[in-house]
Amino acid sequence: MSHDPTQDIPPGQARLLLTPGPLTTAPATRRAMLRDWGSRDGDFIRLTREVLDRLVRIACLETRRASLPGRPAATDAFVAVPVQGSGTFAVEATLATLIAPEERTLVLINGAYGRRIETILQRQRKRVVTLTWAEDVPVAPTDVARTLEREADITHVVMVHCETTSGILNPLADVARVCRAAGRALIVDAMSSFGALPLDAARLGLAAVIASSNKCLEGVPGLGFAVIRREELAGCAGNSASLSFDLYEQNQVLEATGQWRFTPPTHVLAALAEALAEHEAEGGVAGRFRRYAMNCRTLVEGMGRLGFVPLLPPALQAPIIVTFRMPAAPGFSFTEFYDALAARGFVIYPGKLTAAESFRMGCIGHLTPDDMARAVEAVAAVLRDMGVGDGRPREAAS
Amino acid sequence: MSHDPTQDIPPGQARLLLTPGPLTTAPATRRAMLRDWGSRDGDFIRLTREVLDRLVRIACLETRRASLPGRPAATDAFVAVPVQGSGTFAVEATLATLIAPEERTLVLINGAYGRRIETILQRQRKRVVTLTWAEDVPVAPTDVARTLEREADITHVVMVHCETTSGILNPLADVARVCRAAGRALIVDAMSSFGALPLDAARLGLAAVIASSNKCLEGVPGLGFAVIRREELAGCAGNSASLSFDLYEQNQVLEATGQWRFTPPTHVLAALAEALAEHEAEGGVAGRFRRYAMNCRTLVEGMGRLGFVPLLPPALQAPIIVTFRMPAAPGFSFTEFYDALAARGFVIYPGKLTAAESFRMGCIGHLTPDDMARAVEAVAAVLRDMGVGDGRPREAAS
Repeated sequence: MSHDPTQDIPPGQARLLLTPGPLTTAPATRRAMLRDWGSRDGDFIRLTREVLDRLVRIACLETRRASLPGRPAATDAFVAVPVQGSGTFAVEATLATLIAPEERTLVLINGAYGRRIETILQRQRKRVVTLTWAEDVPVAPTDVARTLEREADITHVVMVHCETTSGILNPLADVARVCRAAGRALIVDAMSSFGALPLDAARLGLAAVIASSNKCLEGVPGLGFAVIRREELAGCAGNSASLSFDLYEQNQVLEATGQWRFTPPTHVLAALAEALAEHEAEGGVAGRFRRYAMNCRTLVEGMGRLGFVPLLPPALQAPIIVTFRMPAAPGFSFTEFYDALAARGFVIYPGKLTAAESFRMGCIGHLTPDDMARAVEAVAAVLRDMGVGDGRPREAAS
Repeated sequence: MSHDPTQDIPPGQARLLLTPGPLTTAPATRRAMLRDWGSRDGDFIRLTREVLDRLVRIACLETRRASLPGRPAATDAFVAVPVQGSGTFAVEATLATLIAPEERTLVLINGAYGRRIETILQRQRKRVVTLTWAEDVPVAPTDVARTLEREADITHVVMVHCETTSGILNPLADVARVCRAAGRALIVDAMSSFGALPLDAARLGLAAVIASSNKCLEGVPGLGFAVIRREELAGCAGNSASLSFDLYEQNQVLEATGQWRFTPPTHVLAALAEALAEHEAEGGVAGRFRRYAMNCRTLVEGMGRLGFVPLLPPALQAPIIVTFRMPAAPGFSFTEFYDALAARGFVIYPGKLTAAESFRMGCIGHLTPDDMARAVEAVAAVLRDMGVGDGRPREAAS
């Protein structure tokens, strides 16, 4: 993997994004956008097919390795359906398509993205029940099991795999086991984990996994997708009250003609194809996980030396994005901190989503542990410039 | 304007797109995608504001010129709201937001894009009435006036400005006058005309104009938008059953924070900003219209010398896309024709949308009359290779 991510960028604009996405991409990924494509031409049809097939293989990683010769591959049971727009568009399209108007959905919530799923379903006038946990507490499979036992008319369960609000990892395998045992369809918002955290939709028996181009796959933003169990999708004609978000029809047309129903973001797809090639060259999900885990360790340890304390204990921390408690030092201003880091070439997430006073730094994107170490050095320098001794939060400082 | 559109593209991939879009873009537009942007960072907030303001000015072109010193500009009455995804997404979002569930809409149909608007509204379970004309006949304002007089509960009228199905131009000014007189809101799908055909939303009294990044503005695909009359949008909270397509909320958040609600296609927006700069440098709408009109004339005259006959008479033909009747010569195969033209570096539209046997060639994109002349030469060469004497259709050949 060629490294310097700021290659081709004028020096004044060359900044690394330590955000939950859109994130820093590889120069080759961006250069893949230098060509125009006819969206109904054979070349683009082949590119689309190649990308969608690869997404299914990433979603069914382990089973594919284990599939026996002569037996149909586990990947045959799934199909990837793309959605123009942001990841939220893909979530909305998946819920619009897979859940019929009369069905009832349990949403598991421990952050802003779980709450957004509830809002989407309410807007669609669908029947929703929720289970909610604090933002630093993982979803509890036993609570899910109890609810499913009590509420027989719940047909679907929706959960966020890695809640980007705090960076917490939810226990997907355990929740999937509970849903399988209860015979309910589990839909997973894997927006910020897909491609970096191991996940096997076939083995876990998932109904669908949703993600986007611009998170751990390291493409540019503009494209979401769902990898859906074919037999789940088969019964979903006519469910969607939105034409654009009807993934049943999107898939029908793609399978019949190889073409998207409506204009695809051609350059974004070309960038994703290149990003997927880099993903494969890095060793797929396992390789990307290793790099992100090293990025995360470098960041947390380095920030720890400066007194910063993560919101989550290490066992719950996914190597995707780290939430740090806000420093207690009276001289610390987050706005100044953000601007000074940006001036030194590091863009972090400018707001907070958690209830706790906090800020977030991402570990994902075309970044290495060296980049993270340089980011920590920049944080140290900014603290010095601000006259702040360390980054200890109120609780730890007292 | 630097010309060679295939600059930066490996020779084997350098092809011009003579399609209704996605189309050929300028090298500088594509190069604008070589930088990553933090979607909540100040730089990107400024870029978004700059693009949206420019879109309003293009939509209110003439009035702006005429606005008097000391009087509020006509552009103040409108706001541009972006939508991630394709142009159809922007149409769906505009209809979802501006039309309340109990309201009733008249859709004017003379092609596939008018029919799609009807489908979108039906999916949204809204009350729809339609007026339909043949695909080579423009919308008739007197029919619209009669219908509006008879049906007092129609609140909105929706019309396609240039119907890309055939390339026909509908009489926007006359329909707008009828709607204004009848006190109904007119929403215009200006997807394939915006930026090249003169249009003044303020003077015409439009409720909204919808378009996308990848047509006459010559950006890359992945972004749509609506320029909406502020007082029209003000009453639309809660109309949309889709969270992603709620343009009221999208605008609220943009005006309050400068940020998009959900991840924007950052690179696509950066490309659009560059494309808008080239649009302005070319002389805005008037300059672009002049080049496209020359492109269209070069194409129609050149194809005419080869015997090809356009579907539409010149008076109805917009300089956007030309539909030619299918040649009658027995040796002519459209699939061979398409592939041979592509091999010579010209991608045309591979399918047909009209009822008549026909094919389409676009005049829009980063192309000059010289490019069109070369395309005509390629068509001549392909006819020779196919052993086809000329491109005359059945009627003209008899």
